[in-house]
Amino acid sequence: MTGGEFDLIGRLIGVGWRGSRQVLLGPGDDAAVLRGGIVLSTDVMVEGIHFRPGWITEAELGFRAVAAGLSDLAAMGAEPLAVLLSIVVPGRGEAAVAIQEGAAEAADRAGATVVGGDLSRSPGPVVVDVVSVGRTQRPVLRSGARPGQDVWLSGALGGAAWAVTSWEAGDVPEKEARHCFARPPDRTRLGIELGKGGLARAMIDVSDGLGADLGHVAAASNVGAVLRLPDVPVVPGLPGGLNRGLDGGEDYELLFAAESGSRGAIARLSAATDTPLHRIGQFVEGGGVQVRLADGRSLELEGGGFDHFTPRIVEG
Amino acid sequence: MTGGEFDLIGRLIGVGWRGSRQVLLGPGDDAAVLRGGIVLSTDVMVEGIHFRPGWITEAELGFRAVAAGLSDLAAMGAEPLAVLLSIVVPGRGEAAVAIQEGAAEAADRAGATVVGGDLSRSPGPVVVDVVSVGRTQRPVLRSGARPGQDVWLSGALGGAAWAVTSWEAGDVPEKEARHCFARPPDRTRLGIELGKGGLARAMIDVSDGLGADLGHVAAASNVGAVLRLPDVPVVPGLPGGLNRGLDGGEDYELLFAAESGSRGAIARLSAATDTPLHRIGQFVEGGGVQVRLADGRSLELEGGGFDHFTPRIVEG
Repeated sequence: MTGGEFDLIGRLIGVGWRGSRQVLLGPGDDAAVLRGGIVLSTDVMVEGIHFRPGWITEAELGFRAVAAGLSDLAAMGAEPLAVLLSIVVPGRGEAAVAIQEGAAEAADRAGATVVGGDLSRSPGPVVVDVVSVGRTQRPVLRSGARPGQDVWLSGALGGAAWAVTSWEAGDVPEKEARHCFARPPDRTRLGIELGKGGLARAMIDVSDGLGADLGHVAAASNVGAVLRLPDVPVVPGLPGGLNRGLDGGEDYELLFAAESGSRGAIARLSAATDTPLHRIGQFVEGGGVQVRLADGRSLELEGGGFDHFTPRIVEG
Repeated sequence: MTGGEFDLIGRLIGVGWRGSRQVLLGPGDDAAVLRGGIVLSTDVMVEGIHFRPGWITEAELGFRAVAAGLSDLAAMGAEPLAVLLSIVVPGRGEAAVAIQEGAAEAADRAGATVVGGDLSRSPGPVVVDVVSVGRTQRPVLRSGARPGQDVWLSGALGGAAWAVTSWEAGDVPEKEARHCFARPPDRTRLGIELGKGGLARAMIDVSDGLGADLGHVAAASNVGAVLRLPDVPVVPGLPGGLNRGLDGGEDYELLFAAESGSRGAIARLSAATDTPLHRIGQFVEGGGVQVRLADGRSLELEGGGFDHFTPRIVEG
């Protein structure tokens, strides 16, 4: 992985955590799991880092923040129960109401409800922190991938990053790109079904970028991964095509490992949940992520993905 | 109550919440309660609002944030299980590690552990959002106070506000005052015992100020309250004495209602937990908070307490 945020998160995990008989799974996965199967995750969005003023409405911000938060539960195969929302806003705080309305809509879509939160004024940027609470008796971890298993991906990548690029260039994003950013997909049902049947052996949501998140799964599982770039689905019309899909980040699609014998079952689940599912690679012995290009060449993926603490270098 | 934050929070409660069979207690109390007795609360601290740069160290900030968060669980009579921490920091993020260290220490003190969180860079002030997760089969709500019950308070008030006043005047706070601010008390065991025995019929932690928080309990219980100001304990040496104790806020002591027949049991609990407990008033028919002064006069409390969205008017 790249340095910066990932290193820092690694250090934080080391600091906070001590074993507890109340806790089945501590920090380091998409969410923590308490005894009894309660799944917990937080996801913070900061104005100026995750979005800029004027990109989306306040209601869309609330929606996006909660959709992103609940994506962590989907990646554990957990049923969402409740959401708590901490909102930090400048001025008189009126923005908080619209943020909360959007948040409630995203929670509703996934079958959860907003049960509380906190509110503060701030001299600085808007911050929305979403706490997602779910439940599963069988959490799907990042660490279950084994050599020979397929790499699967839901939906298509690159839409959110496409919108960001347009905004950053001073343009108005294409409608589809804006939609990807403002209304991330709800993969709740897919995640639950993948977990319930034991179909997904390892799972993560694509928030740091496909390359980085596949790297997280490979590292947690102590295996390597081969990614077939031409097989990675990207949103139609995406400029820059596959590379953008690889490192864009914040798509909130599900990336998972499954046995090759499960291909038929996964195709049926794709139809039943009306969700495109693509086989985009394979887990292998070793470590790291290898990317197979259309011309047959192979690249070792060094880093990539969205990292708030390290300047991003995108290689074309 | 005063306007601003309390009104806005009231509006937010209306927006986010819809009934759910998964949720026993929705927004509006110190914490939400899910089916199964899982208690959830968030507490956000913002640089420039809840503290200023240089007042306390980063480790102290982490400690204070988690102590404040866990105080909500104590006020529900809940056993703390886990804490999640979202940290938003400027620059390269090094401050996050010290914040997390302090947070872990406060969690440890209360028997909880840090199981996860999120981290982001920010162009603005430091923000720490604490998610506290606990459990109780018998949550103590704000709404259980009845006429004739005593008003009780743990510890002594005014220390944190004293420190803030000193800092704001450009002074170095007294050691005791600084300690109150940097290391709020842990009332976990007291809260659990008060809840377990059914001793506390209603409970809240003093975070907005004694007057405001007693008002919250009275309003939720649909009763009035009489506060005997001379009986309110304040930290030794507090300048301004009782008034400061009344509206200071952020003391994180427990304020609770108990039957008058429980006075002996509460005295024994005070001794067993080594926590000063004072009887400071009574719940009565009607509404609002009436303050009895030393000279026998009575004041109707109009508002008071810590409100981030309304300029504070302190009447001496």
